[in-house]
Amino acid sequence: MAPHNPSIMVRAHSNSIPGPECFELCDLPLPKAPEGGVLVRLHYVSVDPAMRDWLSHEANYLTVPVGQVMRAHGVGEVVASNQPGYSAGDMICGFFGWSAYYAAQADDIWWKIDTAIAPAPVWLNLFGLNGLTAWIGLNHFGRPAVGETILVTTAAGAVGSAVGQLARAAGLRAVGIAGGAKKARLAEQHFGYDKVIDYRGTEDLDRAIAEACPNGIDLFYDNVGGGQADATFRHLRQNARIVQCGTVSVPSWTPWPQGPRRERDILVRRLSWSGFVVMDHVALYPSALESLTSLYRAGKLTSREDIWHGLERAPSAIAALYEGLNEGKLCIAV
Amino acid sequence: MAPHNPSIMVRAHSNSIPGPECFELCDLPLPKAPEGGVLVRLHYVSVDPAMRDWLSHEANYLTVPVGQVMRAHGVGEVVASNQPGYSAGDMICGFFGWSAYYAAQADDIWWKIDTAIAPAPVWLNLFGLNGLTAWIGLNHFGRPAVGETILVTTAAGAVGSAVGQLARAAGLRAVGIAGGAKKARLAEQHFGYDKVIDYRGTEDLDRAIAEACPNGIDLFYDNVGGGQADATFRHLRQNARIVQCGTVSVPSWTPWPQGPRRERDILVRRLSWSGFVVMDHVALYPSALESLTSLYRAGKLTSREDIWHGLERAPSAIAALYEGLNEGKLCIAV
Repeated sequence: MAPHNPSIMVRAHSNSIPGPECFELCDLPLPKAPEGGVLVRLHYVSVDPAMRDWLSHEANYLTVPVGQVMRAHGVGEVVASNQPGYSAGDMICGFFGWSAYYAAQADDIWWKIDTAIAPAPVWLNLFGLNGLTAWIGLNHFGRPAVGETILVTTAAGAVGSAVGQLARAAGLRAVGIAGGAKKARLAEQHFGYDKVIDYRGTEDLDRAIAEACPNGIDLFYDNVGGGQADATFRHLRQNARIVQCGTVSVPSWTPWPQGPRRERDILVRRLSWSGFVVMDHVALYPSALESLTSLYRAGKLTSREDIWHGLERAPSAIAALYEGLNEGKLCIAV
Repeated sequence: MAPHNPSIMVRAHSNSIPGPECFELCDLPLPKAPEGGVLVRLHYVSVDPAMRDWLSHEANYLTVPVGQVMRAHGVGEVVASNQPGYSAGDMICGFFGWSAYYAAQADDIWWKIDTAIAPAPVWLNLFGLNGLTAWIGLNHFGRPAVGETILVTTAAGAVGSAVGQLARAAGLRAVGIAGGAKKARLAEQHFGYDKVIDYRGTEDLDRAIAEACPNGIDLFYDNVGGGQADATFRHLRQNARIVQCGTVSVPSWTPWPQGPRRERDILVRRLSWSGFVVMDHVALYPSALESLTSLYRAGKLTSREDIWHGLERAPSAIAALYEGLNEGKLCIAV
């Protein structure tokens, strides 16, 4: 029997949260290492909220076309290499796919990983795109200052949990919002937030924010948009920064939803509201990673992954993420 | 008869555009030069869209209390001085009031003006807070780059006309929006915009913007908010900057108006949206003024004022401004 490559293909795009109907498990022939690249055997692949956007009918910063292997970040072992600097046996991370093997171009590979520092799944999470997203959004766009108050949505999530820990390590007071008592407790006890609001268990989010942030909010790291963002806006101080990293709480952008007009807030409170996509900032990755691994070694950062076993579970994983069923970064062990 | 000081006092605040009912012309006793300040005899005082905010019931960056002289920028002559460096006869500009004389504290005075460079009203306009607002918003917040397209609202207005000229001098393509064919023509012919859209004479503003900005918009200098801003947002390019300098097109913020949610635009197009109030940036004034006067001397900037004669006309001037009755910066000759 020829060697084979189980892979999750994209079967359809979706304007809502992509479920199993959007995917198909196929058995593809084993690829070869491409010219200038490597063949990687994946150990873990990632499940990310942004995947919804990659599969949207709407124009987006990245779209995975129907008929192609679903793209995903992954960690794995080089099986064959046509790329100088990489050899069979190296453990690497990069932007690969939901498949057992991936023929990675040079651009797809980020770096070698060192499992002596932390186990492989951590390199998909705190030392992967989530940690980089947290670090770059916080430091490059958020301009944090000692003594300030930051509010972070999805505080128990892969990005939010890293933002809170990084902010506290930088001398800020970190307040989080999370969905459900369990996640709120996780964010407070495991990830060290000073205070976490469970928006599902709160009648009056506005008031809960006021109580949690008596001096107002200097930095708002937002992964969700929608009503949580609206409630937070009311508590932004003069010169506050808003870092827009995701909009996962808004169920659909067709038709385009309405909300409170923002131009007046922006003007009167001299706000600065920036959106970013981490992959635009590759030049910052080395310093971000250096900082993340140092803080981790110093015991100031923890990382938590929720591992699902088997590629066949991936098609339902995005929906599980949006339902908040995971605890910690959702990864698939291939 | 003792010397007197005709002054416009604030009689009431307003949640809409302040008209004559908000003011009262009073004859006050002539003040003395305060300790450490000067007594200035005003030649021209300014009428600004922001005055609406200073007289609003809503919290704002500046409120002029009922029962006090209406604050206004002005140019005038020092009559008596208790401030080192200033002597009777010096022409100065600063933040004074709608009155014949003003007892100015040291903080109220900006600088001496040189009417050999330009006539006194220009120091209330291009070399005053409007020019500074244009310069600081464009250069400090807008980060303009050669070859980019800027869209400016209130293109024929005091700030907008300066932004367009400064942007063109910096190598940008400048597209404006103005209210009425006359203002659109003024902005194009007098202030040198590459293209100006008359939003009042346009059925489909969205399409007019698309035609005027075939490559999209890199920098949006917005003085109005509301529908013009909504139409413009659709044409912002990736990494576009939005500089929020005013919200004059929104008639009321009670109740707070709704509009298209922005978090998705901010994220996907990596926008950066900043609000500013020029008076926070006093440290930038000298370099801004140096740049403005140099460009003016080099013939790259023009300034246009609409002078109304007599302080008694000031109470109806804010409303006239919002109705767009002026052509050029509205000033009152005291």
